[in-house]
Amino acid sequence: MINGGKEMEFRRARNAEQKDIRRQQIINMTARLLEEIGYEKITFTEIGKCLSFTRINLYHYFANKNDIFLELLLQDIEEMVQDAENTFSEPVKNCKVFIGAWTEMMLRHQRMMALFSITNTVFLKGATHEVHEAYRIRLHELFQRLERAVRAALPYFSRTAVSLFVEFENSYAMTLYPASMEYKKAQRIEILEKVGFGTGHFSPQFSKYLEIILMGLAEKDKNGA
Amino acid sequence: MINGGKEMEFRRARNAEQKDIRRQQIINMTARLLEEIGYEKITFTEIGKCLSFTRINLYHYFANKNDIFLELLLQDIEEMVQDAENTFSEPVKNCKVFIGAWTEMMLRHQRMMALFSITNTVFLKGATHEVHEAYRIRLHELFQRLERAVRAALPYFSRTAVSLFVEFENSYAMTLYPASMEYKKAQRIEILEKVGFGTGHFSPQFSKYLEIILMGLAEKDKNGA
Repeated sequence: MINGGKEMEFRRARNAEQKDIRRQQIINMTARLLEEIGYEKITFTEIGKCLSFTRINLYHYFANKNDIFLELLLQDIEEMVQDAENTFSEPVKNCKVFIGAWTEMMLRHQRMMALFSITNTVFLKGATHEVHEAYRIRLHELFQRLERAVRAALPYFSRTAVSLFVEFENSYAMTLYPASMEYKKAQRIEILEKVGFGTGHFSPQFSKYLEIILMGLAEKDKNGA
Repeated sequence: MINGGKEMEFRRARNAEQKDIRRQQIINMTARLLEEIGYEKITFTEIGKCLSFTRINLYHYFANKNDIFLELLLQDIEEMVQDAENTFSEPVKNCKVFIGAWTEMMLRHQRMMALFSITNTVFLKGATHEVHEAYRIRLHELFQRLERAVRAALPYFSRTAVSLFVEFENSYAMTLYPASMEYKKAQRIEILEKVGFGTGHFSPQFSKYLEIILMGLAEKDKNGA
């Protein structure tokens, strides 16, 4: 009896582990296909073909492709948060140094920015309730960690200011990145460098923005509002 | 000869006018279909069916659906700019009054925000070179007009500050609006009001942002940078 119980437990554990491995294979393949053929052309049939899975078998792991993308995005955000925790473990006295380091960090996570920028407009429209809910809970945890990293770097800002900083910098990145040279090159969108406002690199504009935001937040803190 | 010339000129004018009317019918029908079935499901066949045009005939006016959407977006932006010109024709002394009026104005142009938020990530990927280029030139002109309206309302800000204000407020709206209650309701996306960071209305968060931005820009102006 006892041995039989252990055996079953072991099998269950192995099955759970097996399932996680499969899920990760699907996520990785989706990431690869994203680069090769783009979001629009990705289908369960295509993912299955590349993994020698049947389409039906894929449904054991994910209900639709948007659920896969939300999971991939969460993994990308987690990497960015870990990067922030490593980069900003102690107070940064010079604001310009912080701004430069933060901008460089964001540029190390371009796929995260690209995916994040279409979460509300694309992924959430097709995701299941369960994955949508799990995504929002996890996103909240990850951004709490990100706020902690910023508080460690900028201890002279209030909690509220740091929380607003994280939201504002992230929101701006979600619009600026898809308009940048970097994104357009990666997505093979024609770059009209000098037409209208022109198309520029991500960093100069993003750094300028962070400076304004931090000045505004410092003012707000000073006024005690 | 002269009469023949006039006759031809008249016909050409009538044809050009006729063509503009047709183009506008197509744009209007696309806007209607956007509300009824959403971007993904819109096809040339579908637009044609609703207008009793053949798919082939549509190609005389637009090369693909993304070109139609860029034109629709430009018309929406123009409406917003006109609204701004009417709303902000004279100096607003109280910053809070300006912020309130600007937020209300943005909420009168929700389709503009929804379309703008997927321009780089969706429309530009499929648009033709000609329409892409014309879009950027027109966008630039419209934003120059928008800046003029803001300069009239906030004459105590520098030109640079106003230009950054317009870019920053617009960028933030493009991320905040698709995450807002208003957008999710319009797009029939499930609203998880209290999960994670929760889902809120557009106005309170947008107003708070405008305040921080304006404080930061005022500081920047003061420092003469």
